[in-house]
Amino acid sequence: MTASNAKLKSYWQVNGEFGASLPMADRGLAYGDGLFETMRFQKGLCALADQHWARLLKGCERLSITLDKNRLLADLQSFLNNIQKQEPNLHGIVKLIVTRGAGGKGYLPPENSKTTLIWQWLPAAAPSTEAQNGVSLCVSDVRLAKQKLLAGLKHLNRLEYVLAADRAPAGQLPLLLDADEYVIETLSHNVFLVREGEVITPHLMHCGVEGVLKQFAQQKIVPSLNINMREACVSLNEIMAADEVFIGNSVRGFWPVTQLAANKKIVNWSIGNICRQFQKSHQLYLQSVHG
Amino acid sequence: MTASNAKLKSYWQVNGEFGASLPMADRGLAYGDGLFETMRFQKGLCALADQHWARLLKGCERLSITLDKNRLLADLQSFLNNIQKQEPNLHGIVKLIVTRGAGGKGYLPPENSKTTLIWQWLPAAAPSTEAQNGVSLCVSDVRLAKQKLLAGLKHLNRLEYVLAADRAPAGQLPLLLDADEYVIETLSHNVFLVREGEVITPHLMHCGVEGVLKQFAQQKIVPSLNINMREACVSLNEIMAADEVFIGNSVRGFWPVTQLAANKKIVNWSIGNICRQFQKSHQLYLQSVHG
Repeated sequence: MTASNAKLKSYWQVNGEFGASLPMADRGLAYGDGLFETMRFQKGLCALADQHWARLLKGCERLSITLDKNRLLADLQSFLNNIQKQEPNLHGIVKLIVTRGAGGKGYLPPENSKTTLIWQWLPAAAPSTEAQNGVSLCVSDVRLAKQKLLAGLKHLNRLEYVLAADRAPAGQLPLLLDADEYVIETLSHNVFLVREGEVITPHLMHCGVEGVLKQFAQQKIVPSLNINMREACVSLNEIMAADEVFIGNSVRGFWPVTQLAANKKIVNWSIGNICRQFQKSHQLYLQSVHG
Repeated sequence: MTASNAKLKSYWQVNGEFGASLPMADRGLAYGDGLFETMRFQKGLCALADQHWARLLKGCERLSITLDKNRLLADLQSFLNNIQKQEPNLHGIVKLIVTRGAGGKGYLPPENSKTTLIWQWLPAAAPSTEAQNGVSLCVSDVRLAKQKLLAGLKHLNRLEYVLAADRAPAGQLPLLLDADEYVIETLSHNVFLVREGEVITPHLMHCGVEGVLKQFAQQKIVPSLNINMREACVSLNEIMAADEVFIGNSVRGFWPVTQLAANKKIVNWSIGNICRQFQKSHQLYLQSVHG
């Protein structure tokens, strides 16, 4: 390992054992039978932890995966204690994979499996200019299949997203539509558009991931800004006619969208006021948590 | 480990190393970014190996996963050599998982990844009475999402099948329909119905797994029996009106269906002549390979 990629070293903990490997019979590998969360930590704290745990526990409930929140939090604390020996300021990304564990009869889950908890520590995301300058989107040619039993969950069945990433032009961020041509999300951000002062975000009843930053916006940002936000079916034409478009996830925050190429048209936006208000509100909250 | 489950011990080989564990950053775990095959071996041979390799290589091509067939076959041979020390007659099930390996930038695959090959040895399936006596099907309440980019592949994104298995009444084999209510397959078998002497099997352009035994039937059984077989959209009403229904996969062979409960109706079938011809043809082929 050279000095430059030594910085990119990541660390793992599986079922409470630092540096352990995955039991080969784990259903996470065999079937994608699990969920994940990607969390931004500063000084050992994740500002949106409540939203991450809420999504994860809801996902476990929908997939009938047993997860005890006390075990989860104790396991995270032991992981952070191990990480702190390597990364004293605990500033980085924690990825958590929760699987149903091993066992069962083929697809049929075992009656009593031991849920697998896998923690990974990754370096903090490199600073980027997108939050300031905005980002361009293209429309993916992958259409997300509609499956209401899995919609909204951050589950491990992500081949559609791998294909969408692989098929996108280099350096472009793909916007994903569903099989009915409605706008859902980008590869890893929820989408927000502004029309006549109101914020609209695609509903995710059939596919897509309910983002933690979207939850935070609904719970904390919107009430503080005297703005209305609602979920709706959003067509490509509606997004292209919007006054303002932005995207967001919990690791990167909100990014303004300055260009969208679709339907043989290109629409350019200057950076809008509501995006800047969302960014500021999110930043103030992060500062209130991390100091 | 007690004496009784010692018989169920399985063995693993990862990237040529017997007993190795999975690199934690493997995309098979993170995203279900891979494929699998489950193969029946007798005396060290898999009678339908050609069909397994054909499906696997087609899947790799569609997912842009690099797989060299010579490496695959050499890796299998080294695995069987290791297994033979434990299981001298090499009579059992080989499960192969092929993943895109580690690396990449989130969902985006790396430009040059090393494909992961995971072999697992499992005991042969216990003898069962279904081939002789038939099986009852119920209709799952899980509807398979339509995704033509993944249809037909035996990929690792199998949460729909886990949910279907988990939600089925105990001991019943669920029949899976797609979002448009067309019949696709059972949890792990392709479906065949007979109408006026013709065999019809659901087309799998939108979802479902193209079974190896179905391929074998198309290539070898149907031409030898002077029967016509074709793929079509199949509704529940059509299957319930069929003269004969049977299912099949490469590990278990063909099973007659003797009952289907759906739409508040129960249909019972006696075991049909064409199912018995398919079974006999498959058995003769297995004997010609294994002796």
